[in-house]
Amino acid sequence: MDVFIEPIGRLINQFSKLPGVGKKTAQRYAYKIIGMTEAEAKEFAESIVSCKQKVRYCKVCGNFTEEEVCDICKRRQGTTICVVKEPKDVIAMEKLHEFKGVYHVLHGVISPMDGIGPNDIRIKELLARIDGTVQEVIMATNPDVEGEATAMYIAKLLKPLGVNVTRLAHGIPVGGELEYTDEVTLSRALSERKSI
Amino acid sequence: MDVFIEPIGRLINQFSKLPGVGKKTAQRYAYKIIGMTEAEAKEFAESIVSCKQKVRYCKVCGNFTEEEVCDICKRRQGTTICVVKEPKDVIAMEKLHEFKGVYHVLHGVISPMDGIGPNDIRIKELLARIDGTVQEVIMATNPDVEGEATAMYIAKLLKPLGVNVTRLAHGIPVGGELEYTDEVTLSRALSERKSI
Repeated sequence: MDVFIEPIGRLINQFSKLPGVGKKTAQRYAYKIIGMTEAEAKEFAESIVSCKQKVRYCKVCGNFTEEEVCDICKRRQGTTICVVKEPKDVIAMEKLHEFKGVYHVLHGVISPMDGIGPNDIRIKELLARIDGTVQEVIMATNPDVEGEATAMYIAKLLKPLGVNVTRLAHGIPVGGELEYTDEVTLSRALSERKSI
Repeated sequence: MDVFIEPIGRLINQFSKLPGVGKKTAQRYAYKIIGMTEAEAKEFAESIVSCKQKVRYCKVCGNFTEEEVCDICKRRQGTTICVVKEPKDVIAMEKLHEFKGVYHVLHGVISPMDGIGPNDIRIKELLARIDGTVQEVIMATNPDVEGEATAMYIAKLLKPLGVNVTRLAHGIPVGGELEYTDEVTLSRALSERKSI
């Protein structure tokens, strides 16, 4: 790194902290910053600090928000709750413009391998939200081992409360090909086949 | 973009300005910033502003520097000048730890297609550096059409000044394979073959 002068070397180190960014990419990003006007660089820097300072988690659902309670919780009825692992999963769901219910962000999934138990994620907070008005809880954790286990665990806790618990369907992705579908997915698609 | 709250959307826009970064990658970077501590985010932001503010171009060679004249120009003898297109090419050369001369950064190459003529790059400044002490000028512009043309153009200007002008060798990359070497490179490697 001694070939770079200090301010460049330091910026390269900072960019290298971003996910999937190596030294070479960080270097390209640093050159881009040097090529910007000072106003542009300041705006860039300001938006980093501002994003970090303004973004908090909704105290109801755990989603990103600038206020105490997020817009989704404020505006929508809470009869259907979609449970996801992370705030970015809320964004993935919202892009559909189809789901009209509210969310509950767990901020993680149960993963004994990583020492994450049921008390380390927002399960208590979910149970506290279940009152007479909630009709359905959709488990939308990722379809991996931890996501499935977390969905099953939460479903067991919710069912005695008289709430309908559902899970996103597994199957062949739309536009996918049978030949390239992995065996587990194909097997799920077969066992969960529907009459047409 | 309306699925993102304002500070996140704005940061994603900023990250999208970096070379090769699309919306999805910018989104991952933004989440990373949100996951940082406030001190870390501030340090990141500060290093962007500081890099932009502190980095200037050496008034002799045009390389990146924090002062008026860069460390290389200060410390080394100017008997051999290596001419490159951009400051990042200086870094590529310096990583070799082999070249002990000084540099001259053109900040571009002649490219009539993009409206860049000889007066738009630092050729005058190079000519002004040629005094009795300069023995060799190595043209290390990229081996593409513009780089070659620029090297030829500058060589023509330098030769009457009694300076030895050289060009980086072309040929098969070390570790490369004949089969996968493009025809132009292979043809150059053949015509510039050496006795062993």
